[in-house]
Amino acid sequence: MAGLPDTSQLDNLVVVLVRPRNPLNIGASARAMSNFGAHCLRLVNPYAVAFREARSAVGASQLLKSAEEFKSVAEAVADCSLVVGTTAVRNRALQHPLHKLNDQGGDSIRQALGAGRVALLFGSEKIGLTNEDFSYCHWLLHVPTREQHISMNLGQAVAVCLYGIGSSHGAGPAPQESAAATAGELEKITQGLYEVLMLSGYVKPGNDAVSEKKVRRLMLRLNLQAMDAKVFLGMVRQIVWKLRQANDR
Amino acid sequence: MAGLPDTSQLDNLVVVLVRPRNPLNIGASARAMSNFGAHCLRLVNPYAVAFREARSAVGASQLLKSAEEFKSVAEAVADCSLVVGTTAVRNRALQHPLHKLNDQGGDSIRQALGAGRVALLFGSEKIGLTNEDFSYCHWLLHVPTREQHISMNLGQAVAVCLYGIGSSHGAGPAPQESAAATAGELEKITQGLYEVLMLSGYVKPGNDAVSEKKVRRLMLRLNLQAMDAKVFLGMVRQIVWKLRQANDR
Repeated sequence: MAGLPDTSQLDNLVVVLVRPRNPLNIGASARAMSNFGAHCLRLVNPYAVAFREARSAVGASQLLKSAEEFKSVAEAVADCSLVVGTTAVRNRALQHPLHKLNDQGGDSIRQALGAGRVALLFGSEKIGLTNEDFSYCHWLLHVPTREQHISMNLGQAVAVCLYGIGSSHGAGPAPQESAAATAGELEKITQGLYEVLMLSGYVKPGNDAVSEKKVRRLMLRLNLQAMDAKVFLGMVRQIVWKLRQANDR
Repeated sequence: MAGLPDTSQLDNLVVVLVRPRNPLNIGASARAMSNFGAHCLRLVNPYAVAFREARSAVGASQLLKSAEEFKSVAEAVADCSLVVGTTAVRNRALQHPLHKLNDQGGDSIRQALGAGRVALLFGSEKIGLTNEDFSYCHWLLHVPTREQHISMNLGQAVAVCLYGIGSSHGAGPAPQESAAATAGELEKITQGLYEVLMLSGYVKPGNDAVSEKKVRRLMLRLNLQAMDAKVFLGMVRQIVWKLRQANDR
């Protein structure tokens, strides 16, 4: 029905809280997810006490109880084909494209949810996401706020983002896209390509002008489809094999 | 600037919390107002302890300190030209027109803000607004949520409503895209990559399963930006050089 939110459209959304510190915020995030129909919650290195308290809180949802814990962002997003980081900052020299929730950002995520899992990353209450976290993101999402007060409460940011993504503004159902490559597949290509670059002398030891982070960002910008990713990985592996062989001689 | 939220447009919005019980929710509501540029907070019969605690909390905003207290909804909305009550309920026999935030509701409020003060009422955490409260409302606003979990946290509901009202969904100018790589640049990469694939043994002589055409199509699917194309070409050339050197030995 036009105008009604199709809550099942958030089925493919994975909310990733990176290093959350406050049990109330973890609980509030879970509640907003439940309100808007997202059900997959993952935590990367949460403050252990906070996670325990949130989980055992009276009224904690099933969603919170089945939340998964990960040691790294890479592992938490491995099965996702689009990884989006949230940031309050709009002016810092970001290496990433930045989209606004009420503009292209929400639309892009809604569309990508038709093609595979989408991870939406939220940083810790104090410092947000780091540049290392950003290196796993295809692009960044920004909730437009007042210049003088850009920092949102974590639970409120999750609620606003889910509402913004889930509520349809006239757009019909997302067109069926070809399956996108997952972050895990891209990471394998990144690792392989980086080895090729070292073996071939493109990356010089002691000179980190071309870092692994940069290669990862480059791969993410390609928007590889799953099938192409498979082809690329095969190519890269063959080149690695050949260069290793050459270096061994 | 088009596309940017005009936060001054919430100048005329009056957020009215009716009988709030929890100081954390009062504080969270104030924070969301500050994020989105609303600054007039009014409370009707708040639980006295909650209001005192919220006001004296570390980090309480100026907004919270200047919040006004009223004995009745009638007094709290007296200077407003539009009064809108929020409700999670969609099916009860409401005497009032009900508009969805992401539909007509947000638009109507945004429009009315240009003409005068608009009061947006939020009920208590437990029971929401009563029929008595509703009787002061021109119409009711509904945030679309999942049928099975309609009750939102108060602070999150305020955040979502203010975002929904403040954010314009009019298409701004298309986001600035980076220059795309030219066909000529892509062809150089294709040639280089194809040579790498031959030198590394990925492409086998006499077996055209991987043709130059296939590599070209693959490169085209990547939608490379001009800057990334330059980087790729540099990588490919270095790998070609290294593999040639290895094959010459």
